[in-house]
Amino acid sequence: MSTFLGNHIKFSIFGQSHGAAIGCVIDGLPAGITVDEDVLAAFMARRAPGSSPLATSRKEPDLPKIVSGLYNGKTCGAPLCAIIENTNTRSGDYANLAETPRPGHADYTARIRYKGFADMRGGGHFSGRLTAPLCIVGGICLQALEARGIRIGAHILSIADVYDDPFNAVDPAAQMEALRGKTFPVIRDAADEEMHAAVLAAKGVGDSVGGMIECAATGVPAGLGEPMFDGMENRIAKILFGIPALRGVSFGDMPDAESSVFPFSARRGSENNDAFRMNENGDVVTETNHCGGILGGITNGMPIVFTCGIKPTPSIGTEQDSVNLTDKENCRMTVVGRHDPCIIPRAVPCVEAAAAVAIFDALLEG
Amino acid sequence: MSTFLGNHIKFSIFGQSHGAAIGCVIDGLPAGITVDEDVLAAFMARRAPGSSPLATSRKEPDLPKIVSGLYNGKTCGAPLCAIIENTNTRSGDYANLAETPRPGHADYTARIRYKGFADMRGGGHFSGRLTAPLCIVGGICLQALEARGIRIGAHILSIADVYDDPFNAVDPAAQMEALRGKTFPVIRDAADEEMHAAVLAAKGVGDSVGGMIECAATGVPAGLGEPMFDGMENRIAKILFGIPALRGVSFGDMPDAESSVFPFSARRGSENNDAFRMNENGDVVTETNHCGGILGGITNGMPIVFTCGIKPTPSIGTEQDSVNLTDKENCRMTVVGRHDPCIIPRAVPCVEAAAAVAIFDALLEG
Amino acid sequence: MSTFLGNHIKFSIFGQSHGAAIGCVIDGLPAGITVDEDVLAAFMARRAPGSSPLATSRKEPDLPKIVSGLYNGKTCGAPLCAIIENTNTRSGDYANLAETPRPGHADYTARIRYKGFADMRGGGHFSGRLTAPLCIVGGICLQALEARGIRIGAHILSIADVYDDPFNAVDPAAQMEALRGKTFPVIRDAADEEMHAAVLAAKGVGDSVGGMIECAATGVPAGLGEPMFDGMENRIAKILFGIPALRGVSFGDMPDAESSVFPFSARRGSENNDAFRMNENGDVVTETNHCGGILGGITNGMPIVFTCGIKPTPSIGTEQDSVNLTDKENCRMTVVGRHDPCIIPRAVPCVEAAAAVAIFDALLEG
Amino acid sequence: MSTFLGNHIKFSIFGQSHGAAIGCVIDGLPAGITVDEDVLAAFMARRAPGSSPLATSRKEPDLPKIVSGLYNGKTCGAPLCAIIENTNTRSGDYANLAETPRPGHADYTARIRYKGFADMRGGGHFSGRLTAPLCIVGGICLQALEARGIRIGAHILSIADVYDDPFNAVDPAAQMEALRGKTFPVIRDAADEEMHAAVLAAKGVGDSVGGMIECAATGVPAGLGEPMFDGMENRIAKILFGIPALRGVSFGDMPDAESSVFPFSARRGSENNDAFRMNENGDVVTETNHCGGILGGITNGMPIVFTCGIKPTPSIGTEQDSVNLTDKENCRMTVVGRHDPCIIPRAVPCVEAAAAVAIFDALLEG
Repeated sequence: MSTFLGNHIKFSIFGQSHGAAIGCVIDGLPAGITVDEDVLAAFMARRAPGSSPLATSRKEPDLPKIVSGLYNGKTCGAPLCAIIENTNTRSGDYANLAETPRPGHADYTARIRYKGFADMRGGGHFSGRLTAPLCIVGGICLQALEARGIRIGAHILSIADVYDDPFNAVDPAAQMEALRGKTFPVIRDAADEEMHAAVLAAKGVGDSVGGMIECAATGVPAGLGEPMFDGMENRIAKILFGIPALRGVSFGDMPDAESSVFPFSARRGSENNDAFRMNENGDVVTETNHCGGILGGITNGMPIVFTCGIKPTPSIGTEQDSVNLTDKENCRMTVVGRHDPCIIPRAVPCVEAAAAVAIFDALLEG
Repeated sequence: MSTFLGNHIKFSIFGQSHGAAIGCVIDGLPAGITVDEDVLAAFMARRAPGSSPLATSRKEPDLPKIVSGLYNGKTCGAPLCAIIENTNTRSGDYANLAETPRPGHADYTARIRYKGFADMRGGGHFSGRLTAPLCIVGGICLQALEARGIRIGAHILSIADVYDDPFNAVDPAAQMEALRGKTFPVIRDAADEEMHAAVLAAKGVGDSVGGMIECAATGVPAGLGEPMFDGMENRIAKILFGIPALRGVSFGDMPDAESSVFPFSARRGSENNDAFRMNENGDVVTETNHCGGILGGITNGMPIVFTCGIKPTPSIGTEQDSVNLTDKENCRMTVVGRHDPCIIPRAVPCVEAAAAVAIFDALLEG
Repeated sequence: MSTFLGNHIKFSIFGQSHGAAIGCVIDGLPAGITVDEDVLAAFMARRAPGSSPLATSRKEPDLPKIVSGLYNGKTCGAPLCAIIENTNTRSGDYANLAETPRPGHADYTARIRYKGFADMRGGGHFSGRLTAPLCIVGGICLQALEARGIRIGAHILSIADVYDDPFNAVDPAAQMEALRGKTFPVIRDAADEEMHAAVLAAKGVGDSVGGMIECAATGVPAGLGEPMFDGMENRIAKILFGIPALRGVSFGDMPDAESSVFPFSARRGSENNDAFRMNENGDVVTETNHCGGILGGITNGMPIVFTCGIKPTPSIGTEQDSVNLTDKENCRMTVVGRHDPCIIPRAVPCVEAAAAVAIFDALLEG
Repeated sequence: MSTFLGNHIKFSIFGQSHGAAIGCVIDGLPAGITVDEDVLAAFMARRAPGSSPLATSRKEPDLPKIVSGLYNGKTCGAPLCAIIENTNTRSGDYANLAETPRPGHADYTARIRYKGFADMRGGGHFSGRLTAPLCIVGGICLQALEARGIRIGAHILSIADVYDDPFNAVDPAAQMEALRGKTFPVIRDAADEEMHAAVLAAKGVGDSVGGMIECAATGVPAGLGEPMFDGMENRIAKILFGIPALRGVSFGDMPDAESSVFPFSARRGSENNDAFRMNENGDVVTETNHCGGILGGITNGMPIVFTCGIKPTPSIGTEQDSVNLTDKENCRMTVVGRHDPCIIPRAVPCVEAAAAVAIFDALLEG
């Protein structure tokens, strides 16, 4: 299902990579939200391909056209539909995928699931291109959140074996502000060049790399979320795993990027508990933020912090083992087409978008 | 919300730790599933407290009474309600929590969320005790899955800094079978004693420890799940995060338990892709199982494998910093009551239960 | 599915007529709602059998025991579970139903739907007895609504060919207040005796009668509901049809109870439109209330008014044609057991309960 | 909410009457359904305006463009998005509606609900024009149902005080077949002219008329649906009330069109029960079909039959009382623009579409 059912926000993402158009319909947005289409376009541009040597050479302006739900620049209560026409497709590149599934891709599983009827040209509905509509949804929620004093920002925590500094989980505001001005979002400036080198080293041998993204949200009021299956972790995870290459998530701070995957799992309770304190304004805060702003599924007013793991792009330039599904024989195959040796930079706004939807949806319950 | 809405299976978990009863109502179970109440009780017993020096000394038989939905030992199509009466509560222990929230617990966030009306005696609805009804739901799904040739098993991958061997992700069946006979589910026998020592070391100083749990499912057919927001990762994560202390999940194999971070995020594409092969039966398999049986959100017929991170029990015996919410002043507090220095062993069946619900729900879409 | 998914309120109803217990779990109730259990019991008593010559002679105290979700007399934010134990069952009466389905009942359709596994003793999960938990849910919502100035009341509009006066749809408050004091809720006093006579005439020949119920809600603010599939009509209808014998609903006023068909369908636009007016308080009102307080799915601040049709009780005392499903032959059958010759009076609080849930759920979206 | 959440089929309808486009996104359609776009266009044409003296003079080709979800003429498993561009809008006609709400329309309630931000040009998202996307969804489901031997047909049961003959509820197939060839769907041929006369009489004095539509479905297998809140009545009603002017529904046969609104409510049990019989093929059937093919929310294999009431078009040509919301004063207003004096004929395919979605969704649960 490509429909996300939040408690207030429901949206559907449609389109195949090489079909006529992709887009989204968002239901449940409150009336009166200002949508600045230039701000939205700037957000979308961070995800767009073609802007970096790390990304696919496919060029798509990817500018959404909003055909409903907006009136005089504000949401009008009716569902908002935004459409991006597909203009730059080269389907011939993918002609043999129906026969020979690409390792690491959904070609085989989609074939089984959809009984041979799936449109897998360019990855079809499974293409990373479908994260563009997710960024439309998230970009609109981000504008609504900013108007309410909530900011969301993510950075590249790692690419291959190169690590950025983690967020200061208690107060990441300054780091987030600095990231806003960067086209390659890392906290530690030198990480930019080191990460580029790591990607280009892989690209040079027709290979790809994975990495991690850390995301933070500030200004989130205490009391959002619920226990059990509607906790903030459940809500954020449910949408995060809609990003194709994202395969793991860990909630809480990341005190040392090179530490174990789940930093909390190696701590003792006395280390992991965050002591409550009254601050100078009479607000309850915590001295540390190991819990990443969430206790019992509910926000405690501290920044929300979590880290996602992204797998390396499965499309690589070297020949791989696969099977011919018609002949039912083993074979060798080479993926042709244009691909990103590293999608981490382009995934950063997608993670922000996912967080924005989950947090805005929770905020609407107030 | 304590209601889980799968595509077929919907269930609600109710109860507070020190209220009259806890339990669950499951809607959407197909008619005709055999529920062996002895098998269910044996599954529940793995989660029950009081059986180990690692766990709380609270003794609860925790035997569910099924009051509806079962007829002649089989589900009858009507919702199944199971109830566990609370008999062994010592609420006096928690009298001051309303004033002084325990660090790492939901006392503070529940107070804000429920405007002071929450029943937080013994952790209330946020108590780990509420995982008992989750195990009822999962235990029933497990029986249905086993009847269909699908087996689910989990083990303790780590406690503190002690690691078990990971599953052989391509074929974990023998390891899973061996785990069935163990009261302390580890693959590497020596890990049992080492982990006990690590827990008791923490317990000796009034502290607690966290860890990781790895879970596998075999016999899952290819073609379950969907892209984007209804992928198997989304479905499993959405329910997993209903386990109170669970704060992270990583899908795929864990080739080396001590490896840092998400294993896939540090690999190159050429390493992480799983080559397709035809096996001797003419079935499509993969040579490795780095993807943990899921591609594009859809199962590929290989074992589903994922790892969860569990935080250390926040209830510890030493004095901690907190705040008095009435006086609005900092204070010191000590948690009294009975607690587990390590809940990892008891969380193992909970993780299996969560996986069972998600997989059975997907299977019903067939 | 016996789970109702409102936008905020979700509840599941469980139990079979002759099982151990029936009950409900309600999720999504805001914390802090006062639940007066005596008021709830009085509401439930209106639905209870055994109080009238019109109803079944089965006596059930039907007092719900609330086992979770309530703390110090108020909802605490956790799901509320209420249980009614079944104590007075005579299953032997229904022994042959599995073979020979009762005309007008769900015996046959449940057998097909649940592949022979349904527990149909006493009607099983399809029994009218399952409206008791619905009245628990609705009774709690009614208390919450009354605390917010919203009142809901229904009356018997017809039984057989005897008609009550309809509500004054523009201002039914005085009629609703008068109905509160009556054990047999009719506006026109003489209708009481006439309706009893009509029921007893049918009962005397082993037959049963149907009728209509009109329901009104006052104090509902303008602006609740949404267009299309989440309009107030959709929401009310979705839950109303959960009442087993209810087979039709018409929204709007009922200017003349004996009028044929849907009153609005025979009017011209100039007659059916409700003119807007400013009242003395500067509020927008309408001169008539043909629309029953709903325009475009959204409340306009006038009373909500609708009418439901209830079919005659299918259990009758005379012999009927049916089939023997094992022998696959036509046969004759006689329904034994205790039954209501007219369930309309007992359905009145059920209709109020359904309206209360739908309206309270919409109100929570504020 | 303009999103319909069936158990399998989920769809969102978007667009405002005078915005850039209207359309729908359908998620959950199985892969492999053949969609004949000509057949779909022919179905849509029955709803389109401009073809009759009874309808608005607004001409819209209303041809949907399917931009995703279809591949080689079959559904491919990905969401299907269809778009209709708005080309013939005359917004100036509606300029003063924001100030002076039209009686019987949603102008006032939308203004309250959406806090003044609603786009009400041409009725905005509340326009009857939004039933065009509903017909896309339903038209696709109809094609899928026909391929499985299930046919759905509706006819005009009444307009003003002119009645058509009702369906033979036990076997309406021949009547339904005859209706297929008619541009004005009535069973009794003379009703065509009589109904036209009734509409033109109202139109001549600037007025409008309402009526009723009866719908039947044949070939529906026994065993679809569920008790309580997911019964076939609940499912059909939930979507039916998404048709703007539809305000009532009655399930079951309509033995005499001029009888009371809910025919069953005036019958005795002995009259209303449908006797079961074995037919010559060894199938269980009923002698009569008063229940309209549904018992306990579940289909019994007989034709599904129900009747809907449609209110008269609220847009009429004569001056009416209203209020000026800025001045907060009573005023007179005249609706300008193009309107249908009777929307019943155009609503017939909409009712069929609603039934098709509900039945197809239930069928997918098989």
